[in-house]
Amino acid sequence: MITVRFFLKFSSDTRIGLGKVRLLEAIGTTGSISAAARALDMTYRRAWELLNHMNKAFGQPLVTGRVGSTGGAELTDLGRDVIARYRRIEADTQALAAPHVAALEAVIVADDSGNEGA
Amino acid sequence: MITVRFFLKFSSDTRIGLGKVRLLEAIGTTGSISAAARALDMTYRRAWELLNHMNKAFGQPLVTGRVGSTGGAELTDLGRDVIARYRRIEADTQALAAPHVAALEAVIVADDSGNEGA
Repeated sequence: MITVRFFLKFSSDTRIGLGKVRLLEAIGTTGSISAAARALDMTYRRAWELLNHMNKAFGQPLVTGRVGSTGGAELTDLGRDVIARYRRIEADTQALAAPHVAALEAVIVADDSGNEGA
Repeated sequence: MITVRFFLKFSSDTRIGLGKVRLLEAIGTTGSISAAARALDMTYRRAWELLNHMNKAFGQPLVTGRVGSTGGAELTDLGRDVIARYRRIEADTQALAAPHVAALEAVIVADDSGNEGA
């Protein structure tokens, strides 16, 4: 199976892809950086680093909240906008890529080990 | 500045993105894996590994040629098809993402260090 994945690459070299968008979404859902990190099976420190990279890339915060707090984090308008635009580009990209993906999947020669279907 | 980049992700976890597509294109242009590797500033060994990952993902070759040879490599029909489809998805994705990218670029708060414009 083939899937199409994309990311936004900033001139600062920061990348915003599915992982960071899922983190933003989890913060929106849980209202907490630590709860979001747990839900995504990453450390609080790692979640904070990812958020810090995004905040720096835009020069303004995507999430507000007290550092080290166990609650009280929330998405800014920019954070919500980034999620919405990412998911919109993703849906449109999946749709336009679908016939190409299907054509390429059709030529994959099955692996005898069966791994390709896993 | 923000650019949109994408890649094809296989269930085997192989990814085909801009780097591998550029390698295929360089082989098509130079007719040689070693010349293509030089043009892209990578080792022959690295180029061969990337090709091997792609060949395995599809279960058939994207490039034919003698291993270790300094010439005689050429793209298969599949290799050419992968390049064409990748570049087509890329062009379409850039076009549909353009208004979103412009909107996000407009909210970037300039870094005093000027790094964002570098």
